Amino acid sequence: MITPDPYDTPSLLVDAAVLERNLSRMAAHAHSNGKRLVPHAKTHRNVALGLRQIAAGADGLTVAKLGEAEEFARAGVNRLVVAYPLVGEHKARRAVELSRRVELIVAADSVEGARSLAEVATAQGTELAVRLMIDSGLGREGLRPEEAVRVAREIAGFDGLHLQGIQTHEGNVYTATDEADLRARCREVARLMTSVAEELRAAGIPVHDVSVGASASARIMAEQSGITELRPGIYAFNDLGQVALGNAALADCAARVATTVVSSPRPGYGCIDAGSKALGADLVPAVAHRDAFPGYGLIPELPGWIVARLSEEHGWLRWTGAEPAPQLKIGERVHVIPNHVCMVFAALGECHLVEADTTTWLPCMSAGTSR
Amino acid sequence: MITPDPYDTPSLLVDAAVLERNLSRMAAHAHSNGKRLVPHAKTHRNVALGLRQIAAGADGLTVAKLGEAEEFARAGVNRLVVAYPLVGEHKARRAVELSRRVELIVAADSVEGARSLAEVATAQGTELAVRLMIDSGLGREGLRPEEAVRVAREIAGFDGLHLQGIQTHEGNVYTATDEADLRARCREVARLMTSVAEELRAAGIPVHDVSVGASASARIMAEQSGITELRPGIYAFNDLGQVALGNAALADCAARVATTVVSSPRPGYGCIDAGSKALGADLVPAVAHRDAFPGYGLIPELPGWIVARLSEEHGWLRWTGAEPAPQLKIGERVHVIPNHVCMVFAALGECHLVEADTTTWLPCMSAGTSR
Repeated sequence: MITPDPYDTPSLLVDAAVLERNLSRMAAHAHSNGKRLVPHAKTHRNVALGLRQIAAGADGLTVAKLGEAEEFARAGVNRLVVAYPLVGEHKARRAVELSRRVELIVAADSVEGARSLAEVATAQGTELAVRLMIDSGLGREGLRPEEAVRVAREIAGFDGLHLQGIQTHEGNVYTATDEADLRARCREVARLMTSVAEELRAAGIPVHDVSVGASASARIMAEQSGITELRPGIYAFNDLGQVALGNAALADCAARVATTVVSSPRPGYGCIDAGSKALGADLVPAVAHRDAFPGYGLIPELPGWIVARLSEEHGWLRWTGAEPAPQLKIGERVHVIPNHVCMVFAALGECHLVEADTTTWLPCMSAGTSR
Repeated sequence: MITPDPYDTPSLLVDAAVLERNLSRMAAHAHSNGKRLVPHAKTHRNVALGLRQIAAGADGLTVAKLGEAEEFARAGVNRLVVAYPLVGEHKARRAVELSRRVELIVAADSVEGARSLAEVATAQGTELAVRLMIDSGLGREGLRPEEAVRVAREIAGFDGLHLQGIQTHEGNVYTATDEADLRARCREVARLMTSVAEELRAAGIPVHDVSVGASASARIMAEQSGITELRPGIYAFNDLGQVALGNAALADCAARVATTVVSSPRPGYGCIDAGSKALGADLVPAVAHRDAFPGYGLIPELPGWIVARLSEEHGWLRWTGAEPAPQLKIGERVHVIPNHVCMVFAALGECHLVEADTTTWLPCMSAGTSR
């Protein structure tokens, strides 16, 4: 008889006390500045953790995919923002269905995309709340600010849609070089979003929500006027990416991947049983800080060793110290603070929440919710 | 009422006819050369697909993790190779338990790791079949060839273990520049493995299995003498990595990610709804071929466009043609042939098997089997 062991490796351990502190700090910071906090739950795709965020003061949850929204709705979350352009009849039908049960806000950045939503909503005799996505400098999706009034007018004119505001993902702040640069970038995004909102209002289009979202910027964005809503995700756990940006200390990192040293075939080299299927494959997003945070995560128990490379199941350890490499102990259990915690949840699909004297297994959403 | 739609995006579609052709070709090639074929099922972590491989002639399955082995065993696969160093009492107990029900072969590359297996097996009054992992040039795990005899002697001396042979993952062949280089690298790995086997035999240690494993090399390794077993994984589906190496044509790629163009905020730019949580984040492993296969997958319907970058949910399309960029159609459904199909299965956790007139949903193994 094999006893289940939550500490078998690799596994994702979440420190409940650090998590709760992160959650309540951000909620307090947002609310004291008059902002709604609608955390991005794509970070964990975990119902229990989303409910903890609500309990700690979040004003609903943000998701990337409708499948995630549907699952949180089933768990009782009644305000959901889908921060992703929904396109096509099938997704429109699912969105309309969901909007009958919860307060649902969806995103659009094209007339074509909005039209597909509008047609279905109209045919079903209802109205979908929509926000216009603005590109605040990331260059991914979202309208250029100079296009906003033209597209907003068309979307506001569609039967079946209620244009409720604007939103952006200010992912470009992740490459800030230092605190001054980070602050300057955040202020620039806030200036841009409030100016788009003013232009729309001047054109007779009401703008209720001015929503921004990135853990990299949330601390600073909370203090900017004209913004109504924050949608950070990683803040719940933090990771090396947030530490590199000055948004968190190592002690604020609630999530660690427990892993075992499984091989050390020569001095200065080793393998742990956590590869890209456990840690994800992202480097620290802040390029300016990669010298300080090299590799694919930090192992506090093994100073001088870096996770130099990943294969699917292997983390490749390399010694970087000046002195000769100490011998790695085969079988030693160590912990990786990940670069990007979202990808760890996505890769492992579960976590163990560690409280004072209990460990609770929390499975993430199953296959299919990524649609 | 929302009708479930297997073509909602992003989703992984597997062409059953191409899959079956790939499976039977490799089985025939291995068997006609007198080799066992023990496919690496970490590629898909999917019970139904593993059973198809067995039905098509595979001589058991290879896995990376014990959790995968346990799940395949429950489905009736009775020969399983765990091609990963198992370390620690908990994993040893699971391995012993599993070895009572199926033919199980586990791997070791250190005396310490082997000792933990041996102690548990001895305490439980049984014996585990073990293979010594050899580093054939990848530089990850596995013993240097010159260490093999010394370590093999120690391991062969442990009660509770039966040293059954040697194995390697010749991942270094993935960076071959052309067919001649690929053939030369494969021959070198075969030479090295057979020479290690001969040294062990000369030292009085019987070597039954000489096992190699990589889809990059399987076609050529099948023809090398002295090798007894092939453990390719990707060959079942193929991907751009295999196309780049000359192991497959695009028509041999059985797996495609169906995705939708969701945004095109400016000419020459666009987004699809498949990011790193659908496509994985790997480039084509053959560095020499990245100019020919740039970006994060190939979209046959959109010549001139590349998947230039990934965020979690977004594929960033960029126009690379000489003429002005054609307008992308928001809502258009297109298909990505992935760079590395293993990471697509890991990211989406399911596939849809498309046969002539049916589509079957095949969920992959759940969280926890990665241990």
